[in-house]
Amino acid sequence: MSKNVIVGQSGGPTSVINSSLAGVFKTAKDLGADTVYGMRNGIQGFLEKRIVDMSEKIRTDLDLELLKRTPSAFLGSCRYKLPEINDNRELYDKIFDILKEYDITAFFYIGGNDSMDTIKKLSDYAILINSPIRFMGVPKTIDNDLAVTDHTPGYGSAAKYIASVSKEIIRDGLVYDIKQITVIEIMGRNAGWLTGAAALASCEDCEGVDLIYLPELPFDVDAFVEKVGELFQKKNSIVVAVSEGIKTADDKYIFELTEHTEYVDSFGHKQLSGTARYLATLISEKFNCKSRAIELSTLQRCAGHMTSRVDITEAYQVGGSAVKAAFEGETAKMVILKRVSSDPYICTTDLYDVHKIANVEKKVPLEWITENGTNVSEDFVNYIRPLIQAELTPIMITGQPRHIVIDRESL
Amino acid sequence: MSKNVIVGQSGGPTSVINSSLAGVFKTAKDLGADTVYGMRNGIQGFLEKRIVDMSEKIRTDLDLELLKRTPSAFLGSCRYKLPEINDNRELYDKIFDILKEYDITAFFYIGGNDSMDTIKKLSDYAILINSPIRFMGVPKTIDNDLAVTDHTPGYGSAAKYIASVSKEIIRDGLVYDIKQITVIEIMGRNAGWLTGAAALASCEDCEGVDLIYLPELPFDVDAFVEKVGELFQKKNSIVVAVSEGIKTADDKYIFELTEHTEYVDSFGHKQLSGTARYLATLISEKFNCKSRAIELSTLQRCAGHMTSRVDITEAYQVGGSAVKAAFEGETAKMVILKRVSSDPYICTTDLYDVHKIANVEKKVPLEWITENGTNVSEDFVNYIRPLIQAELTPIMITGQPRHIVIDRESL
Repeated sequence: MSKNVIVGQSGGPTSVINSSLAGVFKTAKDLGADTVYGMRNGIQGFLEKRIVDMSEKIRTDLDLELLKRTPSAFLGSCRYKLPEINDNRELYDKIFDILKEYDITAFFYIGGNDSMDTIKKLSDYAILINSPIRFMGVPKTIDNDLAVTDHTPGYGSAAKYIASVSKEIIRDGLVYDIKQITVIEIMGRNAGWLTGAAALASCEDCEGVDLIYLPELPFDVDAFVEKVGELFQKKNSIVVAVSEGIKTADDKYIFELTEHTEYVDSFGHKQLSGTARYLATLISEKFNCKSRAIELSTLQRCAGHMTSRVDITEAYQVGGSAVKAAFEGETAKMVILKRVSSDPYICTTDLYDVHKIANVEKKVPLEWITENGTNVSEDFVNYIRPLIQAELTPIMITGQPRHIVIDRESL
Repeated sequence: MSKNVIVGQSGGPTSVINSSLAGVFKTAKDLGADTVYGMRNGIQGFLEKRIVDMSEKIRTDLDLELLKRTPSAFLGSCRYKLPEINDNRELYDKIFDILKEYDITAFFYIGGNDSMDTIKKLSDYAILINSPIRFMGVPKTIDNDLAVTDHTPGYGSAAKYIASVSKEIIRDGLVYDIKQITVIEIMGRNAGWLTGAAALASCEDCEGVDLIYLPELPFDVDAFVEKVGELFQKKNSIVVAVSEGIKTADDKYIFELTEHTEYVDSFGHKQLSGTARYLATLISEKFNCKSRAIELSTLQRCAGHMTSRVDITEAYQVGGSAVKAAFEGETAKMVILKRVSSDPYICTTDLYDVHKIANVEKKVPLEWITENGTNVSEDFVNYIRPLIQAELTPIMITGQPRHIVIDRESL
C-alpha cells in the first residue's frame, strides 16, 4: 500500500505555520511516506491540481531549518470555504478523484477554525463514500481562538512580538517630558487573546501599558476618556492597547464611529482598521496633547524575526503528531495541546474530534478581564507567559533574516 | 583641574542612541573624568537642573551592556530650540552658571541637526564670554540627514529594521492568490534615506518591493496608479514603499489630499501620517483589489530587538571620539563618520565644524533615484548595505528584551 500524503496551509499566516509544515514533512518521511505532496494555496490550489512534491523543495537539513524559521505560508494559503456536502457533491467527488490520482492516504490541513471546517467536511464525505483516506487538522492561528486546545501554535510568537514591541513603544513614549497618548491597535476580531498579551510588557524594567481593552466587553467611549483624564493627573505618557474589534454597547465597531473603508473577505469577516486612530485623535482633542496611533498590523503575524522557541517547537510537534496519528489510523481529528503544568511549563499533544472544534470561536474568559474592563488578570498573564519563552532567531544572511521560498528555484 | 563632564540626548530617539551615551560615559571614565553627569530631557531638563550622576545609574559592565542595547533615550529627550544669543543672553548666562555650579569642563549633546544648533550656539557663547568649556556634538538620527558625515548612527539599525520587515511583509502578501496592494509608509520628512532602505528587501530569497517613492521628487498620483495597473498585469501582490513626506508637484502632502489630523512640533515640523492609507484605498477602489496600509511608525526608531551591530558599534565609537577630542582641547565640533571603503567596509571617525552641520538637511542625491522616480540605484543600495550588517541581539529575560531604565531604581 502506498503511503503518499498531502499537506496544505489555510487561513491567515503566522510566523510559525511553516514549522508545522516542517513537522508534517519530516515526520511523514521518517515514518516511511513515499511522497509528501504540498498543495499550493490550500484546498483552492488543490482543486486546480497545483500540487508540488515537497522533497523537491526541502532537500537538506538546512532547508528544513530555514522552513521552520520562515514566516508566512510557504505553500501559500487561501480563504476558501467548502460548500455543504449536499449542496455540491460534484466538488467533493472531484476532490476525492484528485486524491485518488495522487494515491493519497492521508490529508493534513494546517489552519484555524475555518480551516478545520474543511477537515470536518472532507472526513464526513470520506465516511459517506467509504474512503479510507485520513483527514487530520493541525492547529494554527495567532488569534488563539480554537476550542479545546490549551492554546494554538502561532499565538505564542505573536504574543511575544506584541509584548516586546509594546515595551519598546512604552520606552519611546517616555522620552519627551510632555503629555502624550499612544494607542496600540492589536489584531483579534472577537477574541482578546492577542490584545491581552500587551499585559506582558509590565515587568521589572517596564511600567507596562496603562489600559487594555478586549473585544469581549463593550467599549464605553466616555468611560475611556474619563479614565485617561485620571491617568493624566498622575503621568505624562499613557499607552493603551486596544483590540481592533472593540465595539460600543450598541454593537458598533469603534472605527465605524469615524470615516473608514471596509472590506469583507469570503468568510464574511469585515476587515477592521482605524480604531486606534479614532481613539488617539479623540484624546488628543479632549486633552490638547500629542497622540500616536500604532497599528501593529500584519507584522503581528509575520514577524519571523521575533519568535518564541516554545511556540515554534510546539508548532513542529503538532505537525508531527498529526502524521503519527494518521499513520496509526486516526481521522477526523485535530491535534490539540494539553497543558500539564504552567510552572514548570509542561505541555503534551492529544487528539480531538474536529467536529467539536470547527467554526467554534474560543474567547477570553470574562473572569480574566479586570478593573472594569481596563486590564487583564494575573491568571491571564500566567497563562501566556510560558508561551513566549526562549528564542529561535532567524538565520541572518548579510544583515537580514533568510527565508526559504518556493518560487525562487535558485535557493 | 576638575574633569566633570555632562551629556544629554535630544530630538527623536533611535534604537542605538544609548550606545552613544554608553560610549561617552565609558570613555570619559576611562580618560579620568571625575563625574559624568547626565541631563534629563536634554537642555530643557538641564535648565531645570534635572541632572543625574551617571555612575549612580550605570554601576556594572552588565548595566553598560544593557544601556547599549536599550532603545529610546535613557536620559529622556527634548525638542527645545535655544533662542538666538542676542535675543536672550540671560538664558545663556543661566546655562553657564549651572555649568559652573557643576564644575563642568565638557558638554556633550547627542542629536540630529536641530540638536547641533544647540552645540553651535553654546560654543559661540563660550567664545563671547571667554569660557574654556568645550561643546561637542555626537551625531544621531535615524533620518541620516546630517551634513558632512558619511551616515549617522541610528540610520543603519532603522534601515535594517525596514529592510527586514519589508521582506516579512512581502512574504505575507504572497500567501493568497489574489490581487492585493500593500503600501508601507516610512519615516523621513524631506529625505528619503529610510524609504530607500526598503530596496534592501530585494535579495536572493525575495523579489523585493515593487515601487519606492522618496520625498526628493514630486509624487504624481496618476502616474502611480498607471504604474500599479501595469504591475497588476504581471503579478498579484504589489508592495510599495513610500516616504511619509511625499508631495504632489504643487507642494501638497499626499495625506493632505484626504481628511487628516495635523500636529506641529516646537521646531515647526508637521507630524505626518495617512499617506499609505490614502494610496492603498485609492488603488483598492481603482482596481477593486484588497489593500493594506502599513505605517512602520514609531517602531522604526525604537526596535531595539533588530539592530545592526555595525551601527551600534559606530554609535558607541562616536560617543567615545567626542570625549577623546574634548579632552584633547577640541570644541564646537561634531564627530563625523568617514567611509574609507565600502567593500570591505572600513569607516573611521573625524571632527567637523558644527557650524557647517547645524540646521543643514542632507537629502538623497537625485542620481540615486531611478526609473522615473520609482526606485533607487545600485549605488544607493551599496551605500546602505554595509550599515545593516551583523547583529547585537537584546539580552532576553523571560522571553522579552531587557532594558535598563533610569526611573526604576530596583534594577
